[in-house]
Amino acid sequence: MSIILRLEIEKGYTTFGEVATAISDKGGDIVAIDVIKESSDKTTRDITVKVSSQEHSEDIAERTEELKGVKVVNVSDRTFLVHLGGKIETKPKMPIKNRDDLSRVYTPEVARVCKAIEKDPSRAHSLTIKRNTVAVLSDGSAVLGLGNIGAAAAMPVMEGKAMLFKQLAGIDAFPVCLDNQDTEDIIKIAKAIAPTYGGINLEDISSPRCFEIEDRLKEELDIPVFHDDQHGTAVVMLAGLLNALKLVGKKEKDIKAVVVGIGAAGIASTKMLLNAGIQNIIGVDREGALVKGKEYDNPMWNWYAENTNPNEETGELSEVIKDADVFIGVSAPNILSVEDLKKMAEDPIVFAMANPDPEIAPEKAWPHVRVMATGRSDYPNQINNVLCFPGIFRGALDCRATHITENMKLAASVAIASAVKEDELNKDYIIPSVFNKQVVDHVREAVIKAAKADGVARKDTKERS
Amino acid sequence: MSIILRLEIEKGYTTFGEVATAISDKGGDIVAIDVIKESSDKTTRDITVKVSSQEHSEDIAERTEELKGVKVVNVSDRTFLVHLGGKIETKPKMPIKNRDDLSRVYTPEVARVCKAIEKDPSRAHSLTIKRNTVAVLSDGSAVLGLGNIGAAAAMPVMEGKAMLFKQLAGIDAFPVCLDNQDTEDIIKIAKAIAPTYGGINLEDISSPRCFEIEDRLKEELDIPVFHDDQHGTAVVMLAGLLNALKLVGKKEKDIKAVVVGIGAAGIASTKMLLNAGIQNIIGVDREGALVKGKEYDNPMWNWYAENTNPNEETGELSEVIKDADVFIGVSAPNILSVEDLKKMAEDPIVFAMANPDPEIAPEKAWPHVRVMATGRSDYPNQINNVLCFPGIFRGALDCRATHITENMKLAASVAIASAVKEDELNKDYIIPSVFNKQVVDHVREAVIKAAKADGVARKDTKERS
Repeated sequence: MSIILRLEIEKGYTTFGEVATAISDKGGDIVAIDVIKESSDKTTRDITVKVSSQEHSEDIAERTEELKGVKVVNVSDRTFLVHLGGKIETKPKMPIKNRDDLSRVYTPEVARVCKAIEKDPSRAHSLTIKRNTVAVLSDGSAVLGLGNIGAAAAMPVMEGKAMLFKQLAGIDAFPVCLDNQDTEDIIKIAKAIAPTYGGINLEDISSPRCFEIEDRLKEELDIPVFHDDQHGTAVVMLAGLLNALKLVGKKEKDIKAVVVGIGAAGIASTKMLLNAGIQNIIGVDREGALVKGKEYDNPMWNWYAENTNPNEETGELSEVIKDADVFIGVSAPNILSVEDLKKMAEDPIVFAMANPDPEIAPEKAWPHVRVMATGRSDYPNQINNVLCFPGIFRGALDCRATHITENMKLAASVAIASAVKEDELNKDYIIPSVFNKQVVDHVREAVIKAAKADGVARKDTKERS
Repeated sequence: MSIILRLEIEKGYTTFGEVATAISDKGGDIVAIDVIKESSDKTTRDITVKVSSQEHSEDIAERTEELKGVKVVNVSDRTFLVHLGGKIETKPKMPIKNRDDLSRVYTPEVARVCKAIEKDPSRAHSLTIKRNTVAVLSDGSAVLGLGNIGAAAAMPVMEGKAMLFKQLAGIDAFPVCLDNQDTEDIIKIAKAIAPTYGGINLEDISSPRCFEIEDRLKEELDIPVFHDDQHGTAVVMLAGLLNALKLVGKKEKDIKAVVVGIGAAGIASTKMLLNAGIQNIIGVDREGALVKGKEYDNPMWNWYAENTNPNEETGELSEVIKDADVFIGVSAPNILSVEDLKKMAEDPIVFAMANPDPEIAPEKAWPHVRVMATGRSDYPNQINNVLCFPGIFRGALDCRATHITENMKLAASVAIASAVKEDELNKDYIIPSVFNKQVVDHVREAVIKAAKADGVARKDTKERS
């Protein structure tokens, strides 16, 4: 890994040779030196240094700063460097070369296009960027595993997401990071900005506010609204599970699944499992298995208890895990033990998706499970919602869907699963790579078909592109 | 001008030859025929036709539709064609080529960038798109001369503006078209979305709401907020006026100026005239000259009467125009007569900026004035705010200005005026062309200098780029 140290060196105290020696002494390998500014009393230089880790980099910066007259203005590693000035840009689709062009894309001719949309608002879908543009909307309240870091700090994630939308599905996405965490305000703002967009991807909004926000927006807007943290994870999890069940030769209707972590992602995952025909699902959270008849503070838990756990099993995870075929974890690190795995039915399937540290370390689990998946890229079978959101929005935009229905999500899962061919399927390959270019097309096609069947498509788009 | 007629022709009724004849009979010149879809019972074709006007195009479409079995699916002229799918796009600045790239621009590495911004929010200016991104925010309540056409119909204007921002000043601008026209809501929304942006360009918001919205946002946000309809017009008007006064050899402090139309643009223009040292300004609206001591319903008129018209002149435009050196019109067509012009002082300067039809037709005015300017591109001396907003935001972003001050606007006017050199200056060339590439640099430099002097620059940027 490379870093760039920007140093301000006052003249007359420390020579550049001494600076270089200090860096080398700490094991840093200098690969380039750029003079940024030179004046009579000081010089500013960017020193590119190869280092072995973040700690190593800090170590070198500290040592350098100890030198008399040397100030470390900034330390940039490659991650920070790719973020300089942000990761996306807005571009005109055609240049304005002359007065004639100007009068067409702007005043006075643009007025005719405005009037056409005023007369028939549906033309906004063809005459503006609405056709291909998605808002990536967050209030910064639950960003990655970082918690409530706020709107400004959430921007790099939303920009990254916009990059993926464009690169993987050709969708123009733009960050809408809100410095406001009031549920009603967020709903009001999302409704207000909607004319610009063909869809809204909600992102990193904390639970349980995210449910209310998504439900209300789905009801009150005529463009698809999709909370990716819930549904993206659920769609990709189900895709992996469908393939895992195929591998072990079990049927959805026969299995027992335990879902741990009944928050946004857990509830969305459970709804998809139910829609996929899995009947015996037991939800587990801090109070143990959720079961009918108990009163929970969290209204979603009451819904959950009513609609799952048909055999009314009670107790801790270590109890209800007995004879389970499938473990789905969207909870916390290290809550699943090897003992638990030993109690599961034959050919255990374990999806330990807590981030960054799974419910059980794969190294510990592997000897005792048949199929293991995590949310991480450094193990096989990564459950990554990058597999879902580009294709699902590509399909929804192309058929001008008003909503993303349960069937569309289910179709997306089946399409993602199908990107792994029968003869390729094995315990370390149940889910396609995020760089598999077929996935978006498969998902798009399936989503359009389901949208048409559900009557939410406003345009008769061909499924094959 | 070319149009494209998309025709659906049922087979067995009208031959294509008959269609072509009908178009020719109406004076249309067919330049291309494209078969879009062919089936056993009908054919869909795009016919590109040269026509002389919008009416001519409609005439041809009507005649074609009268033919048996022929349906006009769509008539697209070049203006509509350039709008298909919108005029701007969002692009990643670098491709994500592999897992390494992905982990840097997105999870898990992006988390370090998020945390750095959380720790020091000012780093959002360097590590996100905030550094170079401006919101073009409108509620669609006063779009061009079209009135309250709403958010969706306003989009083509805001997209066009975003194109100009990028092409002329390299600024990434993005439309924020709000389906909400409540003043407090708009303020709340603009504040909420602000973390993404380095500046907010308010656009086409009706008066007097625009004053409250701009004033409050300026107070409550730490990024520049600039209502272009007011200040952009005012800055460019003053630039033209400075050159016109130079041409006729009059000094700002000595002249009498009459401003007609005391709305958003009229008030902003007057403030700039005052700042430029013009002391005798008389505002005229429906109630005649605004004068101290009268009570007006519009609070801005009361402010206006207090701060202008030092000689307390009263009466209609036709009275107060007497001996005026300058007429500034931002009102309505044809309110200024040749008789009025004859009453003005020697070398009258007339800026008739009502859109699309000026306060007096240039053809009528020319024999009686020394310098004439309008808002139109088909006469000399167009007062076009395209000359202002790209450079003023470029300067403000580059020095991370918190506000756009009166001095920054005045500096922008002087810079625009200076793009017309002394030896080029003449009555038909007081203002540079919108395609003059020097203007943005001149304005940027002047704006940064003024921002530093006013203490609103947060970054010590070099004025010369």
